[in-house]
Amino acid sequence: MSDRQSSSRNRSLEYLFHPRSIAIAGVSRKLDAWNHGQMYLNSLLNCGFRGRLYPLNPGGGEISGLTIYRNIREVPDNVDYVISAIPARFTPKLIADCAAKGVKAIHMFTAGFSELGNDHGRRLEQEVTGIARKHGIRLIGPNGMGLHYAKTGLAFRPDAPRQAGTASFISQSGGNSMYAIREGVLRGLYFNKVISLGNASDLNEADFLEYLIDDPETTAIAIYIEGVKEGQRFLQVLRRAARIKPVVIYKGGITESGSRATASHTGSIAGSAVIWSSLIKQTGAIEAHSIEEINDIMLLLTMMSPPSSKNIAIVGMGGGASVLAADICSSAGLTVPAFPAELRQQLVEITAAEAGSSFHNPVDIFGSSRSGFRRAIQLIAGYPLIDRLIIHIPFGYVTDDQVRFFLEFVKSITKIAPEINRRTVIVLHSTTSPANKQAAQEAAELLYEAGFAVYSSLDRAARALSQFLHYHHID
Amino acid sequence: MSDRQSSSRNRSLEYLFHPRSIAIAGVSRKLDAWNHGQMYLNSLLNCGFRGRLYPLNPGGGEISGLTIYRNIREVPDNVDYVISAIPARFTPKLIADCAAKGVKAIHMFTAGFSELGNDHGRRLEQEVTGIARKHGIRLIGPNGMGLHYAKTGLAFRPDAPRQAGTASFISQSGGNSMYAIREGVLRGLYFNKVISLGNASDLNEADFLEYLIDDPETTAIAIYIEGVKEGQRFLQVLRRAARIKPVVIYKGGITESGSRATASHTGSIAGSAVIWSSLIKQTGAIEAHSIEEINDIMLLLTMMSPPSSKNIAIVGMGGGASVLAADICSSAGLTVPAFPAELRQQLVEITAAEAGSSFHNPVDIFGSSRSGFRRAIQLIAGYPLIDRLIIHIPFGYVTDDQVRFFLEFVKSITKIAPEINRRTVIVLHSTTSPANKQAAQEAAELLYEAGFAVYSSLDRAARALSQFLHYHHID
Repeated sequence: MSDRQSSSRNRSLEYLFHPRSIAIAGVSRKLDAWNHGQMYLNSLLNCGFRGRLYPLNPGGGEISGLTIYRNIREVPDNVDYVISAIPARFTPKLIADCAAKGVKAIHMFTAGFSELGNDHGRRLEQEVTGIARKHGIRLIGPNGMGLHYAKTGLAFRPDAPRQAGTASFISQSGGNSMYAIREGVLRGLYFNKVISLGNASDLNEADFLEYLIDDPETTAIAIYIEGVKEGQRFLQVLRRAARIKPVVIYKGGITESGSRATASHTGSIAGSAVIWSSLIKQTGAIEAHSIEEINDIMLLLTMMSPPSSKNIAIVGMGGGASVLAADICSSAGLTVPAFPAELRQQLVEITAAEAGSSFHNPVDIFGSSRSGFRRAIQLIAGYPLIDRLIIHIPFGYVTDDQVRFFLEFVKSITKIAPEINRRTVIVLHSTTSPANKQAAQEAAELLYEAGFAVYSSLDRAARALSQFLHYHHID
Repeated sequence: MSDRQSSSRNRSLEYLFHPRSIAIAGVSRKLDAWNHGQMYLNSLLNCGFRGRLYPLNPGGGEISGLTIYRNIREVPDNVDYVISAIPARFTPKLIADCAAKGVKAIHMFTAGFSELGNDHGRRLEQEVTGIARKHGIRLIGPNGMGLHYAKTGLAFRPDAPRQAGTASFISQSGGNSMYAIREGVLRGLYFNKVISLGNASDLNEADFLEYLIDDPETTAIAIYIEGVKEGQRFLQVLRRAARIKPVVIYKGGITESGSRATASHTGSIAGSAVIWSSLIKQTGAIEAHSIEEINDIMLLLTMMSPPSSKNIAIVGMGGGASVLAADICSSAGLTVPAFPAELRQQLVEITAAEAGSSFHNPVDIFGSSRSGFRRAIQLIAGYPLIDRLIIHIPFGYVTDDQVRFFLEFVKSITKIAPEINRRTVIVLHSTTSPANKQAAQEAAELLYEAGFAVYSSLDRAARALSQFLHYHHID
């Protein structure tokens, strides 16, 4: 298939994200926290799905003020999209009914197919995929969480955010995609489209990646993959994608035992770590090594201005923390240049700092006033040698009463956000009591609302910054 | 000095941890969250210090029902131990007054000495150390947090735990020692003695390490160090310590900029990373690379039975999480052997698992009952090939309503704690909402009270386990 045909084929996936009506098969009438049909219904209701919803169950009844239809054929409306949360053995019949109803897209949350690792599972997956294809129905899954797209209220968690950003994510694992969405919420990283593929018996990672290349709402793409369905095509699409937008990719199943786990998780055959790393490098994509690292990098890709050098300044509180900050940043390949005597003298004057402070870069300010702290940051940000700033605040060190002073420091930083937020990363050190945790989360919210990328450890911030610089060919 | 002399010299440090009376210089009369004298007073009061307390301030007055004396010479009692939280320029006079009073130990929290990096600071440090030595007074610090020892109520944080464990910690950084104590509390790791040394102008890391070798209450020792005062002696003592008890060491200031930061933090000259790593290896100590990693390893050293092989079983929930768990453990050098068909069949029957579960090791159980989950763990723990278990529970994935089901699983595990807790590590995956965080913390408490080592990520658990096995010569 030529690039052109393939691209036009996948631009057509747009309709998947804009259903006017959704039927959910497998909605129990009785309230049950583990009924997956209810979980989907609640997700769509909570996240403000704009279209019409039709729960299905052979027992009929009512739920959340909606009629439960016994069969999709009884629904008195067109159905654009179906979510299957029924046992695997009933799915051939469901798909046949969907075909009769004229449905064009089915998301199969249902598990119990090729991931079982037996002939029965593989045959059943082939059977349902065959029925769908015969009738021109596209399948998402089986054994995947499906689609998240806040703009139309598509969601697979009742607590999914209603806000949309510009990062999109293709994941073979549902758990990992949920984790990425939720971890993102805590730091203001909102996804545009998240696609949890599962076994990907019909639409696969290459199809959605092609679609996202051309998606104007998506400015950066992340992928979690265990094994690929069409290896050559995927690498071609990945190469093309990485030329157009930043693509971050995390490969699961890189060890023998991990690979054994992918086989029973999504029925994928995984390759070796070394081969994958070198293939990824050749495509120009950015390799990540955990879900947190995906989010860490996506934050910078969607929030930061392009860098011009490796020179960073580290400003924070705590002598031990400053030593470790310098070690961590240098080890990650960043440069922490010493400040000249003149700048150090200006900082001493501005902050009226206590004994124990240090101004050599890392700068360790303790006992400065809020305005002194803010002016020190402005002075350092204005120093021409410095490209990026890391500000770290030890919410983990202070006592519960001192925490509110740190919140005041944080508010003080938000006042100069427009000057510095596109080149400053803020680290709120791991916190160690319920009050500190709550204050750090409050601080994180103030900061990300002011447009700052926020991290919970220096390690993670330094690693993400280093990969961001590498992506911009600064290393 | 011979080993014998040096050992008897430092056994005598015992008295530092058992003062009958403490005077604190620099206690403001007016309530102030940043007055360090008050911080020490509150720490000792909150942590149940059993002796008599004498706040000092030239202004006199009263605080917390205690008389503030204007000068230590006015205190109508013997004073065993003094904490200095006054400005550096007043300390020579304080030490001279302490000598007149017959004080034998002073902890100098006061900063503004050699860490300033100027002649003035170095000279002042020499001066106060000289005065102390002339009068037979031992100094802790300056520029350090001092001593934490819950058994007598010595503490340098108002929120320090009152419970004592068997791990002890020598730290050049106060912030890092506070962080270790507080992070430990969240997972049931209680320290026996924590010594925050600061500039260590008199008593240094080698002195306290010698003391801890002979301390019967200490079963494992951790050290955070930026640079050593007596290099040869420290390495000798470290070698001797590591032959007797496990010693974990983390060296800060291993990069050029980190080294610059240590100079202004505690006035230390740091060496290169490679030299340090190889020196540490030669001594038989365990090298750590962060404060969290120190705690991660100390947990295993103080809680686990000795291992007999590298073979682990991974049991948890979530397909993606299982794939990553297997990758992480294998990459950390652990072995995740496949289970035989017979064991897998037994697990299927016991758990009555849902489609999507997998029993190959990693075992991914979803939808099992509590008792099925517990019986599966017992069966796996009894399988002769398996030495250690990692149980992981995805508190980060589930919705807020589902969280309580996970708490029930956790309670179910605590029922079989005596059978498995000395060879099982539990990971409660990073959590992503306030309700999940609270539930995960509640779960962590139930688990550590039942004697389990609890981790917040698979990465950290696998790395600690790998270092623990290495320490026991299994690799």
